[in-house]
Order: sequence, then structure tokens, then C-alpha cells
Amino acid sequence: MTFAATIITLYPDMFPGPLGLSLAGRALTEGSWSCEAVQLRDYAVDKHRTVDDTPAGGGAGMVLKADILAGAVDDVRERRPDCPVLAMTPRGKPITQARIRELAEGAGVTILCGRFEGFDERIFEARQVEEVSLSDIVLSGGEAAAIAILDACIRLLPGVMGAASSGAEESFEEGLLEYPHYTRPSTWEGRTIPEVLRSGDHAKIAAWRKARSEEDTRLRRPDLWERHGGVRGQPASGARHD
Amino acid sequence: MTFAATIITLYPDMFPGPLGLSLAGRALTEGSWSCEAVQLRDYAVDKHRTVDDTPAGGGAGMVLKADILAGAVDDVRERRPDCPVLAMTPRGKPITQARIRELAEGAGVTILCGRFEGFDERIFEARQVEEVSLSDIVLSGGEAAAIAILDACIRLLPGVMGAASSGAEESFEEGLLEYPHYTRPSTWEGRTIPEVLRSGDHAKIAAWRKARSEEDTRLRRPDLWERHGGVRGQPASGARHD
Repeated sequence: MTFAATIITLYPDMFPGPLGLSLAGRALTEGSWSCEAVQLRDYAVDKHRTVDDTPAGGGAGMVLKADILAGAVDDVRERRPDCPVLAMTPRGKPITQARIRELAEGAGVTILCGRFEGFDERIFEARQVEEVSLSDIVLSGGEAAAIAILDACIRLLPGVMGAASSGAEESFEEGLLEYPHYTRPSTWEGRTIPEVLRSGDHAKIAAWRKARSEEDTRLRRPDLWERHGGVRGQPASGARHD
Repeated sequence: MTFAATIITLYPDMFPGPLGLSLAGRALTEGSWSCEAVQLRDYAVDKHRTVDDTPAGGGAGMVLKADILAGAVDDVRERRPDCPVLAMTPRGKPITQARIRELAEGAGVTILCGRFEGFDERIFEARQVEEVSLSDIVLSGGEAAAIAILDACIRLLPGVMGAASSGAEESFEEGLLEYPHYTRPSTWEGRTIPEVLRSGDHAKIAAWRKARSEEDTRLRRPDLWERHGGVRGQPASGARHD
């Protein structure tokens, strides 16, 4: 089955963009996913092809009109009824790897990209659009965020990563950061790979990796550690082996 | 002054990509920023141009070699000594709008993009590379994350957004989500723009926006609200006016 990515945007030329290369690009060529960029301006109803207007109450910038957005969303939803519609906005719910996995298991995703000051708020409730935030930073538009969301979905599609890579040990998959990686040379500029990784003892290596994963999550991301069930400031049950 | 963006990547063709269009594209043409994508493979030292090797301790995937990464970082840093070097990795510190603003005020940024299982951990300390995470999702490589980081920096460069847009009222700039936006028509599918926004009373509008910004942050992002100094679960001091 082909995962259908549809992006509603004022800059359709941005797609597939970087997703046309590397892993995602190969998957696109092989038909694992399809990429359709829809020009929002095509849903304008006046001769100037207006998509935005000044904010109610005053202020800088322009706001994308609810009626025009609805026209685009309705049209895409008719063709892609099984694809949830996301809008990229800093006011949205922070995206999680769990939500990415759900999306990747579905028929596809439709992503609405904002520009200017953003969307008329009424579109979200009126059309059941899921407000999603990629990161706590402000972008010039939703397009760069859409590319990241799609990239995260595509790598999880069947056959895309190849048999070798499990994906299950990655950061966030179990609510923890991944353990650190090392490769040859075993000594580089006086820095050596941790002894245990060169021991060949698989049980010890697995224990070290689990401990480092827990420890690094606790120290670097107390927010994730707490959600994982750890106690803020307290070390994990396993001692650190290095 | 031109903001110098340098990306160290196995896929230089991904750049400027979407950053060559719209706001960032215009800024690139006008010389507000420069974009140099450096091929990591050019720093390989064998005839196969090897950049990666199997993970110490076993497991799936490949790890980017510290010695090759160091060659690339050293070369770029010699040419761009004033640009901090970031590596995009889910193990990194979550990027913030404050850090974006710092970067945008500087000479530029060098971004190291991982692929495969990631980087040999030794590179970070050995070369003072700042580990940065865009979002709690796993990408196929750092490139999509680099595009988002650069987009966020570029819109803040002098002259890029234009005089009309302040940027100061955006989400995260004061540790809060931005208030919701509305525009014409004032009634759409039976949904009306909040009365206060049509009152013309600037003080009341400002108070409503502040209250909605606080209220939405508290309800949607208790983590941000707490960091802002609010108490989790408690409403903001101002009552909600709508």
C-alpha cells in the first residue's frame, strides 16, 4: 500500500524537495509513498487569488482565511478520506514518536502549512484539523515542519529502512534517549571506546547500553525521564557501568 | 553582514532546497545569508571514501567515524571560526527559540547532519560540538532538522521579515504560546470572531490576547506554563475574557 502524503501549501515547489533524495527519495521512486503538493491559492475565490486578510483586532501580519482553507481541506479530504489532516502550528500539540508511528501505520497524512501570522482559528474545530507543533521554535511557515514529519513517517514504512535496522532501539521509541554509539578506531586522539563494548560479552553490553540510555535520559532530559516513570533527580535502578 | 550557514552532510543536494524559495530564498538572493553544503565524504581517507563503520559492541546500522567527522569540522571551523558547530541528534538538548535568536545574532552556524545510527560519541567533546535535538521524533538524518533550524534563524535576520512583522509577539518569544488569530468573514459557517476583537478597544483587545495566550499555554502546554512561572493546573492571574 502506498502512503499518501498531501501537503496544502503556498509553496508546492518545496515538495518533495529533500524528501526526493536519499532514503525517502528511493522510497518515493519505489512507490512506498506518494507526494502531492496542493496549491492553497487554487482555492481562492476572487480574481486576485486572495488567501489571507488582516487580523481581527489589529496587529502585524496576515491571517489565512478559514473559508479558503476549508475549501482546500474539503477537496483533499474527499479524495483522501482516510488520511488525518494536520496543521503545523506552534500552538499545536507537540508531535511524538508514538503519533508518528500511528500515522505511518495509516493510509497517509494531509498537512496544512501556514505562512504569515497563521490560520484563522475557526478552521481547526470546523474541519477537525489536528494542530501539531514540531518544536518550540518559530518557522517562517509550516513547510519545513511538514518535511520533518513526513521524513519521520516515511522511514517507518514497510521495507524502507531495510531488514538490518530495527528502529526499535532508537531514541524515544521506549520513551528514553538512545545510548551513545562508537566505532573504529578504538583509540582516537587518546579517547578510547568504553571497555565493555569491546568485551564481546553480549549480556554485559546490553546492560551497559540500557544503563547509559536511562542515565543519559535522566541527566539530559528530566522531562522524558519523569514521563517514563523515573523520579526526577534520582538515578535509574541499574548502576552505571563505565 | 551575511549570516553564514554551512551544512556538513552526505546529501549536499538537499540544500538550500526549500530554503531557496519564499522568505528564505529571497534573503539568500539578497545576500542576507549564504548557504554552503559540504560533502562529508570528501573528508574520507581511503579509496572507497568510507565515512562509517559498524557499531562497537554490535547491533544494527552504521556509525559515522569520529576521525572523518573531525576532518570536516576542523576544515569548516578554520574558514568559519566564529560559527558555532551544532550536530542534529535526538540525544541533544532540545532547541529553543532563545537559542535560535542567539544564533541569528551571530556570524552564522555550522550544522553536522547524521545519517545511519548516528555519530561516534567522541566527536562531541573532542571538537566542542553542541548536540541539538529539534523534536522528540526520529528522522532518517539530520538534514530535515537542519532546514528547520536554518529557517527559524533566517526569518530573524535583519530586514528579512520586513518592518511590518515584529516577531516579538510570536509563540515562545515570551515563553508562552501566541493567542489565536481570526480574520474576515466575521461570521463563517455560523462561527463568529470573538466580540472583543471587533470592539476597536485596543486596551481590551490587548488584555484578551494576553489572557488567551496565558490560558492556552496553561491548558495546552503545562510544561511551558510551569517554566514561565505559572503553577500547573492554576489559571493565570487575569480572568479569561471571551
